[in-house]
Parts: sequence; C-alpha cells; structure tokens
Amino acid sequence: NRIYMDYNATTPLEPEVIQAITEALRDAWGNPSSNYIAGAKAKAIISRSRENVARMVGGKAEDIIFTSGGTEANNLVLQTAVEYFRRNQRAAERDEGNHNGCTGLPHIITSNVEHDSVKLPAEHLQRDGKAEVTFVPVSKVTACVEVEDIIAAVRPNTCLISVMLANNETGVIMPVQEICQRIKSLNKQREQLRILLHTDAAQALGKIRVDACELGVDYLTIVGHKFYAPRIGALYVNGPGARTPLCPMLFGGGQERNFRPGTENTPMIAGLGKVCATGIFTRNFYLLTDKIHFNSHYPSSDILPNTCNVSILGPTLQGWRVLSSCTRLLASVGAACHSDSENRPSHILLSCGVPTEVAGNALRLSVGRGTTKEDVDAVVEDLRKTVQLLEEIN
Amino acid sequence: NRIYMDYNATTPLEPEVIQAITEALRDAWGNPSSNYIAGAKAKAIISRSRENVARMVGGKAEDIIFTSGGTEANNLVLQTAVEYFRRNQRAAERDEGNHNGCTGLPHIITSNVEHDSVKLPAEHLQRDGKAEVTFVPVSKVTACVEVEDIIAAVRPNTCLISVMLANNETGVIMPVQEICQRIKSLNKQREQLRILLHTDAAQALGKIRVDACELGVDYLTIVGHKFYAPRIGALYVNGPGARTPLCPMLFGGGQERNFRPGTENTPMIAGLGKVCATGIFTRNFYLLTDKIHFNSHYPSSDILPNTCNVSILGPTLQGWRVLSSCTRLLASVGAACHSDSENRPSHILLSCGVPTEVAGNALRLSVGRGTTKEDVDAVVEDLRKTVQLLEEIN
Repeated sequence: NRIYMDYNATTPLEPEVIQAITEALRDAWGNPSSNYIAGAKAKAIISRSRENVARMVGGKAEDIIFTSGGTEANNLVLQTAVEYFRRNQRAAERDEGNHNGCTGLPHIITSNVEHDSVKLPAEHLQRDGKAEVTFVPVSKVTACVEVEDIIAAVRPNTCLISVMLANNETGVIMPVQEICQRIKSLNKQREQLRILLHTDAAQALGKIRVDACELGVDYLTIVGHKFYAPRIGALYVNGPGARTPLCPMLFGGGQERNFRPGTENTPMIAGLGKVCATGIFTRNFYLLTDKIHFNSHYPSSDILPNTCNVSILGPTLQGWRVLSSCTRLLASVGAACHSDSENRPSHILLSCGVPTEVAGNALRLSVGRGTTKEDVDAVVEDLRKTVQLLEEIN
Repeated sequence: NRIYMDYNATTPLEPEVIQAITEALRDAWGNPSSNYIAGAKAKAIISRSRENVARMVGGKAEDIIFTSGGTEANNLVLQTAVEYFRRNQRAAERDEGNHNGCTGLPHIITSNVEHDSVKLPAEHLQRDGKAEVTFVPVSKVTACVEVEDIIAAVRPNTCLISVMLANNETGVIMPVQEICQRIKSLNKQREQLRILLHTDAAQALGKIRVDACELGVDYLTIVGHKFYAPRIGALYVNGPGARTPLCPMLFGGGQERNFRPGTENTPMIAGLGKVCATGIFTRNFYLLTDKIHFNSHYPSSDILPNTCNVSILGPTLQGWRVLSSCTRLLASVGAACHSDSENRPSHILLSCGVPTEVAGNALRLSVGRGTTKEDVDAVVEDLRKTVQLLEEIN
C-alpha cells in the first residue's frame, strides 16, 4: 500500500466532512435564494459556513466571499486592483484639481515564486497593456522575499502588493505581516491611492496560524482542498465594497452581495464550513533522510512544518525517475498543475537559488494529518531501496 | 407535506447522483493533475463525465469546458466575443489593408427576457464603453423573440447574438435554430468577422431535446442544478480555440486546456456526468386550474412542457401573498435570484406583454420528475382554498 506525501497538491476528505457534504446534497438542495424551506435550509448552511470560515482567518462573516476556488479568488484580487485604479483615474480626469496620483498604468508588485494563479494573470495584465508588474525575486539564500526589496519596488502608481503567505514547493513562509506594516505607514504619507495588500494563503491555512487582521492584509485567498475541505474557495476582504474595494468579474443573479453571482454551491460550502468549525488540520513534522540536498532548508527562513523539498544527488536520480520507481511513496516533483512538464526543473526552485542539476532531482514531500511516524520510516526505506536500484541498473 | 413546484429554480438530486458524488469525494479526492493513482482516478472520472455531457448536447468531448456554473459560462461567452473583436481590430490596425469590418465598438444582440447572467454583463460592457448592446424585445403576442427582429438588429460591427433556448419564467421556447440558420447565410456574405452564436440552454436541458449541432450554435450554456445534477456548469464550444474563439477570464494552473484554470471540482463533475449518462430528467405535463390568467399561454409559441406561469385574478391575490398562504405548494413568483424583490412584478412578464396588475399576481409553477398527478390535484385544491380564504379575510 502506497503512502501519500503530496498533501500540498490536495488533501483527502475526512468521513465527517463527506457526511456534511452528503447531507447538504440530500437535505439542502433548494436554491438558497428561494423563500421556502428547502431554500432557507441552504441559506442557513451557507451563513453558518461563512461564520466558521471567517473565524478561521480572524475576519467577520461579511468579509468572506465564496468563490469557485483559489484561482478565481487570486484573479479577482488582481483585476480589482487594476479596475479600482482605473476608476479613480477616470474620476480624477473629470476633476482635474485632484489627480489622486493615478497617472499612467497601475503597478502591481508580487514575488517571482507565486502560484500560477497570481503569476499568469499578472503577466496577462502586463502583456495586455493594462498594468505594469514587478516580480520581486526571492533571496537565493533564504528563498524568501525581502521586505526591503518590496519597499524599494514601490512606485507612485503602485496599486497592489501580492505576496503568498507560504510557498507551495519549498514551504518557505514569507514576511507578509512586516510588508503590511511597512506599506501601511507608507500609505499614510502618500497622497496617492493607498496600496492594497493581498496574500495567497492557500498553502498556509491549516498548517500554521493565520489571522488576516494580525497580518494586516486587505485580501486573503482561502482554498478549501488544500486543508481537508472540498473544491471550493473564498476570498477574505476587509470590509468588501466599504473599507476595501472589490470589483466583480462576473455579473448575474446577485448572490454574494453581487460580488460573486451564481447559485451558491451549498454542499461544497457546507464541507468547507465543517472543516473550519472542527479544525481538521494537518499533522506536522520534519522528514529526515540521508545523501540529500534539502531544497527547502533555509536556516533563516520559517518553513511550513509539513513540507520538505529534497533532492537525492546523482546523475540517474531525477525526481520523476525516483518517484516512478518507488513502490510506496506517492509525491510530486512540484506544483500539481505543472505535472505535465515534470521533466523540467521547477522554476520556483531555480528562483530560490537551487542549481539546475539539483532542482531536476527535487521531490516535494508534504505530509498531512493521515501521515504516521511509521509512514515516514517506510518512505525513507522505500527511497533508500529505489536509489540503490536506480544506481545499480544505470 | 409540501409540494415542490419550483423545479425551474433548482432540482433535487436522485440518490444515485448523490452516491456518484460521495464516491468521488471518498475515492477520487486526488488532484487530477497528479500522476499517481488518486490523481488518475479523478482524471478518468472527469474525462468520462466530459464525454457524457458532450453526448447529451450533441457535441464532442473536446467541446466541453467545465465552469463553476451558468453565470460563469454566460459571462465567459460575452467577454470572449468582445475580446475576440478587439484582438481582430488591433490586428487590422497593424495591417491597414485588411480592416475586417472591426470598426468602432463590438455590438451584441440579445433579447429583453434573458437571465441576469446574460443581461447584466451585457449592460456592464455597455456602461463601461466596451460594447454596444441591442436588447431585442420579445413579441407581446408570442412572448418569443422574432427572428426578423434579430436580423434587423444586425450591424456591421455585430460580434455576438445571445438568445436563451427557453425562458425561465414563461417556459417559452425561442427560435434559436432559425436564428442560427439565417445568421450563418448572412455570415457567408459578410466580409466582416463572423457573428458568433450563443444560447443559454439552462432551462431547456433535460426538458426538451437539445442538440448544439442541429441548433447551429457556437456556444451553449449548461447548468447542472437545473436538471437534477449538482451545482456545476459547462460551456459547449464548437471547437474551442480552433473553429470558435474562447478567451479565458481566469489565468492559472492550466486546467481545462487553459480555457478555465483551477483545480477541477471532481465530485460535482462526477454528479453532472452521472445525470447526463443516465438521463434522469423531468416529468412533463401541463397544469390546469380555474379563474386564471395563463401568463405563459402563447398559442403560437412552443413552451417548456414543465412550466406554467399563472396569475389568479383579484386585488388581494398577489403572487407572494398566495404563496405565503398556501399550506402545501412551494413555488416562486419568478426567477429564484430575484426573490428579494418579490413584491414587484417580473420584468420578464411585463416584457412579454402581461399587464402590470396581472404580472403582480403571477405564480411560476414548474414541475419535475418527482411530481405526480396527485401532487397537481393537491396543489389545485390548495390554491382554491387559499384564494377563498384570502378573498374572505380582505
């Protein structure tokens, strides 16, 4: 029997979560907008889930907007920042005395190790002539974005800073709170539109404590299936439409206070709420083994306690080759959505300073609440045998 | 026990569909992009569902793009048409000899009785200065959009015609096939960019036969929860990215061939596939009762066989009042997403020529596969008693 160590790709659902989803499918199938009992039941479930999700990230129920997933939530933030800048720019053009600092194109700052659902919409906005983007490189010593580098990248037309809370491949935890503190004092001095602050917390939630207020972000992305909840997402927005702008991408039936219309996915929302309420989270410990380069071993950086990115050194020990020869270990060589390009080394690791020939051998092991000490021992033994075999036959 | 007659708002799930979803939650929880068994299982389920959905609408598997729901699918079509026009316009500007007819703003033609997920994005594009929109009024005799009115609305810069296949409140079936035939011969004569054809089939699927190829549309919107499947949608596109343009709204991990990134919602897709494969569809018959104005009785129009929009005439018999006094009937006064504005008459009915005082009394009864002849008799009796009571106390 195989041992799953790819909890950063997705997580299995506990029976009680499956039960909450199944019950909602059976008993709360009504349209949440309908006024009779089947609708009211669905509406109540959604409302309770919203409270539980809010509590998990230290926000209020009204700060939570359910989305189809993390990709949509991240895209929504980037589009909002650009749209909000543009609206203010047009308003300023009508009223010449007050130029708001909204000149030229809006400028976005992000890191060079973000998930594709931040990286690609940023590149698209840039290519489309709708925004300027600075991809601040992470330090090759810490694999972490430096606060000073972010501050140094700020321009008069900067409208958004988006830095992930923890990296999906290395597990490195980014200094989001410090960035927010620095930008907030900078915002007070600027006459321009304030810089909005976003963090994609997809990989951090359920693994470390996350409090949106303490972090000081305006937006925080929540992805259910990364922490034992189903395929549904949410965006925390600090006072959506009031303290913090939120410009919808979709238009329709008015659900989610018009910020995200479309009939609500009651059962998936029920499952997410269940996980947030019961705190079904991860099991954390470090993995240890031998003859190894730790790609996520940055002594001065905090790392997610469940993630271990390792390369076993040797000319025949490419990550994909090791994984396909293991008899028990199930893991990946990087982000799940890049599994088609598995033979190329991860651009995330290269950005973090891992040499090409080491990055090509990388294995991303991410443990979870189902992982036991015995599993880890078994995996180490599995890897040891696999490496021996691969070195013998080549 | 109450009798549900609001199947056009949403439909309950059959036990075998709930089972398909639950099994996927339990056994196919892996990330479909992962290369090991949990991922492969999920990938296989998604692939099988795609084939079943395609078969249901007369398309090929590669024509189906899964979306979070109908709202997203409809918004995607409108955005694509505008974006595609704009790209061709820019290309023509670079190459002055070939102007492609892409001058001015792109122009969209739709009806004035579309669902809000077509109406509102169209209005938003218009207000934002990104498109011109003609809302062709339906005939007040047939409640149906006239083919000649659509053709007469065509301009040199028309890029999209979007007409729903069946109306959600009246059940009236629109002449989509004839519109497509006329536009296709018009497209052959035009030197401009061809006009793209879309139908929102949310209310037609599972109630009447739908074949995208026979209809001749480029895009067709599929909404699971309107035909006994869960909260998931899909867009049929006739050769996405090849014969028919499709410009993504979201950018991320590359799922759905980059047309709609985001980790796939395997269990919901499994449920949709199950319904499409097994043909769990609606039960159809007309409702009859007395002292009544049939708001969806248009002798020369085809009507969905499950939908009956009726007003019981009388100064105290407003729809919301009748429904809240009924002891068994569960139904609505119009689209579920408008339930907050229930005291105002439906703009759809007013557009179809129903007088304001009649529209204010409207009840939308939509039956489904769970509805029996006895249910209908019981509802008629329930309505009869309710009306008697309301007339006595007022």
